[in-house]
Amino acid sequence: MKCFVTGGAGFIGSSMIDRLLADGHQVCCYDNMSSGQERFLDNARKSADFTFILGDLLDAEKLAASMAGSDIVFHFAANADVRHGSEHPRRDLDQNTIGTYNVLAGMLAHNIRKIVFSSTGSIYGECKVVPTPEDAPFPVQTSLYGASKLAGEGLISAFCEAFQIRAWIFRFVSILGERYTHGHVYDFCRQLFEDPGHLKVLGDGTQRKSYLYVQDCVDAILHALDKATERVNIFNLGTDEYVQVSDSIAAICKELGATPKLEYSGGDRGWIGDNPFILLDCSRIRTLGWKPKFTINESIIKTVKFIDQNRWVFDARS
Amino acid sequence: MKCFVTGGAGFIGSSMIDRLLADGHQVCCYDNMSSGQERFLDNARKSADFTFILGDLLDAEKLAASMAGSDIVFHFAANADVRHGSEHPRRDLDQNTIGTYNVLAGMLAHNIRKIVFSSTGSIYGECKVVPTPEDAPFPVQTSLYGASKLAGEGLISAFCEAFQIRAWIFRFVSILGERYTHGHVYDFCRQLFEDPGHLKVLGDGTQRKSYLYVQDCVDAILHALDKATERVNIFNLGTDEYVQVSDSIAAICKELGATPKLEYSGGDRGWIGDNPFILLDCSRIRTLGWKPKFTINESIIKTVKFIDQNRWVFDARS
Repeated sequence: MKCFVTGGAGFIGSSMIDRLLADGHQVCCYDNMSSGQERFLDNARKSADFTFILGDLLDAEKLAASMAGSDIVFHFAANADVRHGSEHPRRDLDQNTIGTYNVLAGMLAHNIRKIVFSSTGSIYGECKVVPTPEDAPFPVQTSLYGASKLAGEGLISAFCEAFQIRAWIFRFVSILGERYTHGHVYDFCRQLFEDPGHLKVLGDGTQRKSYLYVQDCVDAILHALDKATERVNIFNLGTDEYVQVSDSIAAICKELGATPKLEYSGGDRGWIGDNPFILLDCSRIRTLGWKPKFTINESIIKTVKFIDQNRWVFDARS
Repeated sequence: MKCFVTGGAGFIGSSMIDRLLADGHQVCCYDNMSSGQERFLDNARKSADFTFILGDLLDAEKLAASMAGSDIVFHFAANADVRHGSEHPRRDLDQNTIGTYNVLAGMLAHNIRKIVFSSTGSIYGECKVVPTPEDAPFPVQTSLYGASKLAGEGLISAFCEAFQIRAWIFRFVSILGERYTHGHVYDFCRQLFEDPGHLKVLGDGTQRKSYLYVQDCVDAILHALDKATERVNIFNLGTDEYVQVSDSIAAICKELGATPKLEYSGGDRGWIGDNPFILLDCSRIRTLGWKPKFTINESIIKTVKFIDQNRWVFDARS
């Protein structure tokens, strides 16, 4: 099939593209390179089935024109900076909500009827039900990032109802693995490479979070796309385990052979809107026959190895 | 207090303004007059405490400047055309989601920390739990209108978390009463005035809906504003009863002395995204001590009387 991948030069997008090409599909990558990395496309560019278009989701005309002839959209482009939303409150609205609207409008214009969307467990806010299922009690939003993704989900679902589109929406935990370029493992590695004797930690180290390895994430999406047949298919995506930040630090330090003095910023959350306990109930996608191949600990180690061997990622984002 | 009312020339907004002025508050009405009515402000304009600014929510600069000095925002401006969302899919995004963002940005610019927001029971989609409580299972959106209001709620909640704003969010059933200018009673009256012998009905007449009288709605909002003290206060707003469309038709026809031949379009819903059974669980606001003074049937009769005595509303909207 002809796949249109927004944010295809990013962490998850480029991992999906490599898989789609390996599976024999044609892929068009649309990315504004605001956080995407040229090197993540090195493999894809070797394929005759790959094309790249430099463009922004907010350039609705270019976006729509670029989508012509596609069978399915993998919509991964987003501002994924959940921590600093309050410093630039318009960015999530623009990139995540209006951007998603523009993708949907482009699909209508070119009669494309399938969309895969990367949503987030952040839309559950601070849900009292943990592990949190897809039909958890109606959440109250606590972050601009979560709010913008919820708005994206809402737009997609309403378009599905009105225009006979089908959607596969995935509410991710944090994803780890090769090409990972932001988040706590990235931050900790950067600090430890600069000074292995000292590590600043947001919060008090007790925050409990769930993570998923990027190749497991790609597997899960393609599995659900194949097996789930509703008009709107919504899935949590994570492992059945969680780790404390302090466990994560221990794994990173062990892998790097570092024994830093830890400096906690304090409090039970790292930033505004941070949820101190994230664990998603993933039984819905598990019943389709998918399960993760890697544990959180294995994912962390793979991530540290990637960062250690690709220190250019710090320059690329600094 | 100094109240800033968006959509203040509309049905609910103008009813709120009259109440706020009667209660001794200062009111600034901001409206683009796209569906607002000059006559709805006749009473307000007699007050020295009333000012009017002609402006659109999408004119973010004018909006923010107009809000300077306000203590609280009553954000009622919206595209409320839930039925025809799929004919102009961008309108809900612009007026309801981006418009709400602009209101919030204006509040930040002028240090305004309280917002009242008119949301909708439509955000529950086709909830399986009826009567539907505020913490119903996480809904899937079925209309662009509902999706845009959900996005507005999410933005408001996230701003509350990030910027110490307090919000009172109300998920309305359909509101009836004086100044009502769209919806099924309006449509039926218009048809019956043109031809008392014939009435076209969307759906099969079995759709069950709940309604609330506009003065009860205004009472409820001010009651909750006084009594509810959370950072984000979310309330369903309706009566504990519902009527079938066919009951509603009977009440309207009786009031007008009409005996039309009924022509049903068929199906269990009137339009894309129409929910065949809307009944909200309003126990949360009931526990604060508010209850509606009027039944649905009384609301319908009041609405028919208003329309009958104010037939200019048809010209104003045609």
